[in-house]
Amino acid sequence: MLHVLQTLEGSTIAARDVWPLMEGMYPICRSITGDGVRRTLDLVQQQLSLERTEVPTGTKVFDWEIPNEWNIRDAYIADRQGHRVVDFRAHSLHVLNYSVPVQRTMTREELEPHLYSLPERPDWIPYRTSYYREHWGFCLRHRDLEKLGPGPFEVVIDSTLAPGSLTYAECTIPGRTQGEAIVYTHICHPSLANDNLSGIAAAAAVAKELRNERPRLTWRVVFGPVTIGSLAWLSRNEQRLGRIRAGLTVGLLGDGGALTYKRSRRGDRVTDRAAAHVLPRVAAAARLVDFEPYGYDERQFCSPGFDLPVGRLTRSPNGQYPEYHTSADNLDLLRPECLAESIRALAGMIAVLDANRSLRNLSPKGEPRLGKRGLYGSVGGTAPGEFEHALPWVLSYSDGEHDLLAIAERSGLDFALLARAAAALEDAGLARTIEQDTPALKREARA
Amino acid sequence: MLHVLQTLEGSTIAARDVWPLMEGMYPICRSITGDGVRRTLDLVQQQLSLERTEVPTGTKVFDWEIPNEWNIRDAYIADRQGHRVVDFRAHSLHVLNYSVPVQRTMTREELEPHLYSLPERPDWIPYRTSYYREHWGFCLRHRDLEKLGPGPFEVVIDSTLAPGSLTYAECTIPGRTQGEAIVYTHICHPSLANDNLSGIAAAAAVAKELRNERPRLTWRVVFGPVTIGSLAWLSRNEQRLGRIRAGLTVGLLGDGGALTYKRSRRGDRVTDRAAAHVLPRVAAAARLVDFEPYGYDERQFCSPGFDLPVGRLTRSPNGQYPEYHTSADNLDLLRPECLAESIRALAGMIAVLDANRSLRNLSPKGEPRLGKRGLYGSVGGTAPGEFEHALPWVLSYSDGEHDLLAIAERSGLDFALLARAAAALEDAGLARTIEQDTPALKREARA
Amino acid sequence: MLHVLQTLEGSTIAARDVWPLMEGMYPICRSITGDGVRRTLDLVQQQLSLERTEVPTGTKVFDWEIPNEWNIRDAYIADRQGHRVVDFRAHSLHVLNYSVPVQRTMTREELEPHLYSLPERPDWIPYRTSYYREHWGFCLRHRDLEKLGPGPFEVVIDSTLAPGSLTYAECTIPGRTQGEAIVYTHICHPSLANDNLSGIAAAAAVAKELRNERPRLTWRVVFGPVTIGSLAWLSRNEQRLGRIRAGLTVGLLGDGGALTYKRSRRGDRVTDRAAAHVLPRVAAAARLVDFEPYGYDERQFCSPGFDLPVGRLTRSPNGQYPEYHTSADNLDLLRPECLAESIRALAGMIAVLDANRSLRNLSPKGEPRLGKRGLYGSVGGTAPGEFEHALPWVLSYSDGEHDLLAIAERSGLDFALLARAAAALEDAGLARTIEQDTPALKREARA
Repeated sequence: MLHVLQTLEGSTIAARDVWPLMEGMYPICRSITGDGVRRTLDLVQQQLSLERTEVPTGTKVFDWEIPNEWNIRDAYIADRQGHRVVDFRAHSLHVLNYSVPVQRTMTREELEPHLYSLPERPDWIPYRTSYYREHWGFCLRHRDLEKLGPGPFEVVIDSTLAPGSLTYAECTIPGRTQGEAIVYTHICHPSLANDNLSGIAAAAAVAKELRNERPRLTWRVVFGPVTIGSLAWLSRNEQRLGRIRAGLTVGLLGDGGALTYKRSRRGDRVTDRAAAHVLPRVAAAARLVDFEPYGYDERQFCSPGFDLPVGRLTRSPNGQYPEYHTSADNLDLLRPECLAESIRALAGMIAVLDANRSLRNLSPKGEPRLGKRGLYGSVGGTAPGEFEHALPWVLSYSDGEHDLLAIAERSGLDFALLARAAAALEDAGLARTIEQDTPALKREARA
Repeated sequence: MLHVLQTLEGSTIAARDVWPLMEGMYPICRSITGDGVRRTLDLVQQQLSLERTEVPTGTKVFDWEIPNEWNIRDAYIADRQGHRVVDFRAHSLHVLNYSVPVQRTMTREELEPHLYSLPERPDWIPYRTSYYREHWGFCLRHRDLEKLGPGPFEVVIDSTLAPGSLTYAECTIPGRTQGEAIVYTHICHPSLANDNLSGIAAAAAVAKELRNERPRLTWRVVFGPVTIGSLAWLSRNEQRLGRIRAGLTVGLLGDGGALTYKRSRRGDRVTDRAAAHVLPRVAAAARLVDFEPYGYDERQFCSPGFDLPVGRLTRSPNGQYPEYHTSADNLDLLRPECLAESIRALAGMIAVLDANRSLRNLSPKGEPRLGKRGLYGSVGGTAPGEFEHALPWVLSYSDGEHDLLAIAERSGLDFALLARAAAALEDAGLARTIEQDTPALKREARA
Repeated sequence: MLHVLQTLEGSTIAARDVWPLMEGMYPICRSITGDGVRRTLDLVQQQLSLERTEVPTGTKVFDWEIPNEWNIRDAYIADRQGHRVVDFRAHSLHVLNYSVPVQRTMTREELEPHLYSLPERPDWIPYRTSYYREHWGFCLRHRDLEKLGPGPFEVVIDSTLAPGSLTYAECTIPGRTQGEAIVYTHICHPSLANDNLSGIAAAAAVAKELRNERPRLTWRVVFGPVTIGSLAWLSRNEQRLGRIRAGLTVGLLGDGGALTYKRSRRGDRVTDRAAAHVLPRVAAAARLVDFEPYGYDERQFCSPGFDLPVGRLTRSPNGQYPEYHTSADNLDLLRPECLAESIRALAGMIAVLDANRSLRNLSPKGEPRLGKRGLYGSVGGTAPGEFEHALPWVLSYSDGEHDLLAIAERSGLDFALLARAAAALEDAGLARTIEQDTPALKREARA
């Protein structure tokens, strides 16, 4: 599955193909609600059919509530000459995300508590939000802050914060079994390239290819705002969560840092094991790190009330590259070959997670005769080939306790080879896939 | 809890304050029964109210029986001139502990089998006992043995071995829950400083402070003779042993060796995990060693019929310093700063064991909104502080499977910080302590 | 048990004593059926009473069927002068094992596809078989192949492939309990010394001694052909497999490679733990390697439908020495001191596996008084001896969860010492062996 995207050439083409999408999305001022999200989804939807969901303001989602919808048209700080010294039209980061409307003339002193800058990075605009406390503010280059003068200033934020809805969208690729899997990427950051656009782009690239497949699991690729978005999705899908076999939150996939997989809360779930198999094969420098309850939407999927087997795929993790949450996280930070590598990793993990399963050896007493079924050479005494090597591994551990990933771990053989052997054994009637709803897999689903 | 004793200053003062107690106890000839024990407990009782128990001779305690009570007034070997060449009044170690009475004139040859010395340490008097076989003897410096001459000698041991009782005492600090914990220190060694007095002193110092606290667990600090004393205590408390959540046997806490924690028989109990958290923070050189069925009263607490989560806290373990069980284990061997460090470790372990518990996240579906409960800053985009860092760790793993110690292990955060976070979450109604008598904790209690 | 064979001297004598047996067996052309096997068993039977089983052609054994019996009298390739250029009488490897009869005059070209040689080892005859596809062929030195000339050749294989039976034999040493154990060695290779004769010799040496013992387990030492032989044995003993507590397949025990133990499929069974205890004590260079589904009859014993605790003891594993499956695997390859070391290892593992058991401490509340039972010195204060050291280890972990091997692992003490202590404690009424059919051991048997 996703064979082309797992190749260097296929992933390179895919990364190139989604680049214009990132360029189109970059200027938009996204937030956790509002038209910025909708316009972003419109762009994705040009590539990929999506089912969109609007969750009305005030809807309870667990401990949270969908907030008022935020929209912004303009914002600036103008000096006495009417010259815009900070201008939202120049960069969407200039306004504190979710700022309430303002239209006042203020002294520098009055304005000061509403200004955010990075003294140690005087040329970068920081990214700040205030979703759940009514507040307003401007983010600006420290260099500009220092030149600001005493005022008075005309301060305008032409925003609205009013009942509306939260928007997310998903692309569903139906599977052949009851099991499901999820890929979640956040779409709520304004003009930030790595920490937002790269995840959307990679997810879109993979989803596009997935739609040409007939996977075993039903895959849901979800584009939604961080935290409240995944909570809304979880809330609306709560009855179906028992079917989820694996999942990934993805983002920060285009920078030059090493591929990084952050384990699920339990650390030993199938997604974690798939990452341990796939990532070192995609990039020798790839890192596997333990769960911690900071980051992105994996926090919600892994919360103890859901406890889903969801890990996180990034390159540099959040907060661990200097440009993180600043205007320096722009399209220039992204490297096509890195996005391509991320796509290979994501496609590889999806392929493994989709094909992974436990089989039951149907001829478990002694080894079955592979030769008479055309699966094995007939002159003894010499060493078997790679494929013939994989067959007894699958038979030996198809005992209801080991899945194909576990057999890959034990044997050191590649998952794809074992999956081919498993398919051949199923065709020969020597093994049968243990269905998802057996007690053993239910346990794994719950474990 | 025990905050002051966990500081360098507080523990230094505590070590200095108990020094006179050790000096007062040093000359007394203690044994597993008799007035030496009672006089020792009198001295402890000047500092600490104790409940004393007398268990009569002949009482069955499991496979054992309380022996006759031993008391001794005088003992000596005198030469023909009536000169005492070995004199119990000079050192309580000179008599084989539990010697039966003797009053005879003997040749050197007759006396010889009753003499114990250390040829390789000619200036030290060895410590020898014969509790359960009627026997008598003298322990002396090898240098003196060599000068003893041919005799005849007047040999006198003015002891009695007669029905009486075994004495132990305990200080109970009532807790807020059903759970209990124990600290046991032995009080049966005669003039030996590290291997006896240091443990009594540290236990007394900690018990004194504990009485000012309102702990979660009921703590019992027990002062009793080795083996038969802990067996007697176990026998009289057998119905209550199911409540014991943790325990330590303590002793040998004043020498210059590295702090050493010996694990419980199973090696993975809560006491073992507390030691792994606390000891390296108290002393970088601290060692954690596996259980072995030699040592002190942890042998009884950990025997498979009780299987209690009891470890042992020492500096040099028994038998692992040259002065062990000789007259060279005197007050000069003790170092105040080492006793202070031991007190810090003991207080730290008690504090962790008392505060450790499992919590249930009461808002487990997704992360609860900490901000609206005043537990989290409101402007997003920046890194949280230390305390804000601890809150999601506690929430994330308050799943009925992890206690606070386990969360400390996973997160690398300090236990005390996590305990503060847990308390704040309980105050905010976001978590609830899982009571001791839930199945999960019963399992741990039994495990 | 098997005390003498575990000594250097005893094992050296045993290795020397079985050497003539290997010399007698070497020239015989063995296969998986036929008179070669029977003549081989006749030779073993001169040393050891064996119970022989004949399984008729056509008998179903699981996924397999007993094939026609193969016998061969003569085979050769003769040139135009009638000169035998390849002659079965010179070496049994010259004929492809299980070749169907042939009597034809052929050109070199017609003959070519039936010739097997090793270009990279021009002086060695390879070993090839075709048990389950009707075929014929000759194996020859590559040097001879190159000199063969254009023909025509008279090609004769005077063999029969006809209904008959498969032969195996076993030596049963009855035990004192319900538990059983197996040692399986293959007997189907023609003139190959290490990969066949060394295993037969070592198994015979050990079985001979075992017959003088009264083991705890019933030991079955089985001499049978590879794969179809163990399958036949498993098929005929299927009802009794639940009694098997441990097992080894043995072979390749005489070459100069390091002793190698290949773990059972699960890797943590009692046989695996015994090897981890015994092998490093026999040879510092010994290696423990994980299971893989290639090798010899452990493949059948460990197949998931049987899942027996059977490992494999070899020196160089199959395929891992240059002479493997060639005429260079002859008696000159064998080293008496290596065979002796293998016998020590095999005897040591059998001794441990036989004596290993779980005990129940009958005085589990506190330590029992060993002194009053004569098991312990009476004057306290000094260190106990080695045996006195072992007693509390056994008592402490005789809790129904640890067997003697587990106690050996925890304590670092030698298994034999612990077994002596266990016996003494049983004699003293302080411990009792937990019978094989308790749930705990049933679990281990199934685990």
